[in-house]
Amino acid sequence: LNHLDVRIYYEDTDHGGVVYHANYLKYMERARTEWLRDLGFEQRKLAAEEDVLFALTRADVRYLLPAKLDDLLHVKTQLIHAKGARLQFTQQIFRQQSAKPAALLIQADIYLACMGKAGKAKRIPCDILEKMNSKEIL
Amino acid sequence: LNHLDVRIYYEDTDHGGVVYHANYLKYMERARTEWLRDLGFEQRKLAAEEDVLFALTRADVRYLLPAKLDDLLHVKTQLIHAKGARLQFTQQIFRQQSAKPAALLIQADIYLACMGKAGKAKRIPCDILEKMNSKEIL
Amino acid sequence: LNHLDVRIYYEDTDHGGVVYHANYLKYMERARTEWLRDLGFEQRKLAAEEDVLFALTRADVRYLLPAKLDDLLHVKTQLIHAKGARLQFTQQIFRQQSAKPAALLIQADIYLACMGKAGKAKRIPCDILEKMNSKEIL
Amino acid sequence: LNHLDVRIYYEDTDHGGVVYHANYLKYMERARTEWLRDLGFEQRKLAAEEDVLFALTRADVRYLLPAKLDDLLHVKTQLIHAKGARLQFTQQIFRQQSAKPAALLIQADIYLACMGKAGKAKRIPCDILEKMNSKEIL
Repeated sequence: LNHLDVRIYYEDTDHGGVVYHANYLKYMERARTEWLRDLGFEQRKLAAEEDVLFALTRADVRYLLPAKLDDLLHVKTQLIHAKGARLQFTQQIFRQQSAKPAALLIQADIYLACMGKAGKAKRIPCDILEKMNSKEIL
Repeated sequence: LNHLDVRIYYEDTDHGGVVYHANYLKYMERARTEWLRDLGFEQRKLAAEEDVLFALTRADVRYLLPAKLDDLLHVKTQLIHAKGARLQFTQQIFRQQSAKPAALLIQADIYLACMGKAGKAKRIPCDILEKMNSKEIL
Repeated sequence: LNHLDVRIYYEDTDHGGVVYHANYLKYMERARTEWLRDLGFEQRKLAAEEDVLFALTRADVRYLLPAKLDDLLHVKTQLIHAKGARLQFTQQIFRQQSAKPAALLIQADIYLACMGKAGKAKRIPCDILEKMNSKEIL
Repeated sequence: LNHLDVRIYYEDTDHGGVVYHANYLKYMERARTEWLRDLGFEQRKLAAEEDVLFALTRADVRYLLPAKLDDLLHVKTQLIHAKGARLQFTQQIFRQQSAKPAALLIQADIYLACMGKAGKAKRIPCDILEKMNSKEIL
């Protein structure tokens, strides 16, 4: 799953009539979670059984167009780089539109570090790293 | 659609390791939105074209069991009463479990009023009211 | 501290131009946290050192008037009952208004249970219970 | 007000025991709102009376250290550049610590555009621009 659909509800919008800016980070995290689940890994299990978390270290997000109530968004997740304790993704959020091509709303560079719950960086476990890298080649 | 599936992500959880209590209200609102969409009505359109909003007037929510990260929830929405400007729903949130029967997490009585953006109560438009009442009979 | 001031920002509002309904639960929880801090107890410490959490078991919330962007709210917290593992509060949210009396926006009955992180109910620790009950008499 | 204090509550934290990453964007927005209020401008009024919104166009956020439940944070806001329809800020979030120097948690470059509700860019009104630029010189 490199693609996740996200419906926009009242909770997502703000007084300006558009999606509140911080919420796009949530949709991108949902999409990375599904990307990881598709590789066979669930975050609760990873945290509990292997003390593995993926923590954001940098998010560089460009806001191109706003999403609105009832929109159906499409989040695209692409792994750029995974090595040692570091992960880098490019993520894009599109608005699906019935008679028109999808509009690009958000373009983001996302950097994560693998760490334990105590906050210390650790190598990405081999089985995860292998699946991540092989997935993107396919 | 009387049923909506909701996946639990990091954004939904809190320091206690469970879903933060206010978030269940969001899932119930998502479910009412899909219930309404299934009748043929979209909230953005209703607000823009007919100046119709459904505002919460009372929520009586019982928290029976907590949801956790990665859980797949199931929100059930049942109209109890719709008349004049008033709506009443019963909503339940279940956790789907693979080998076991679903567990009831949340039981709520939800009361709404139909109003315009200026905050004044108004009758539920006839076409909406009719569809609401006929749906529940089926 | 039976009173907490809450300023309304963009994050709090929704497409309807008012505060999103689930957010009032957050303000009431902030107020209960400050009420507890004022008794000398911090939740992170309670969780880590005594395995004590206060989990919501029921919230019965009446939405009387909406809050808007830039409003300054005032959350009032009153303990009704604390015994064994159970707590009950009445909470009210007012809008502060310069030339007019404060307007009551939200009236809520809040029920909590004392429990450990594993989810099992436990008695409210004696020192906390004592301070809670003596505070409200003053 | 170049400084805003933010207390961390349950609502801010996640399953990892730290503040959920998207929430720091909210604290920075609260701080920019107070920075603007300190210049004499309220966002609801600006939107209603002058059709002026400040929309995020880019946020480049570095996550250095996590905040936790009960922490008291300190958000620092510095205007870098304001001209035409464009604004650029540097914002930093610190954790206040009683016996130690404050720890830098977040460092961010924030870019905004002035626009009307319809989404079209417009020049920052002269009186606002003037106050913004004179404030930072002081």
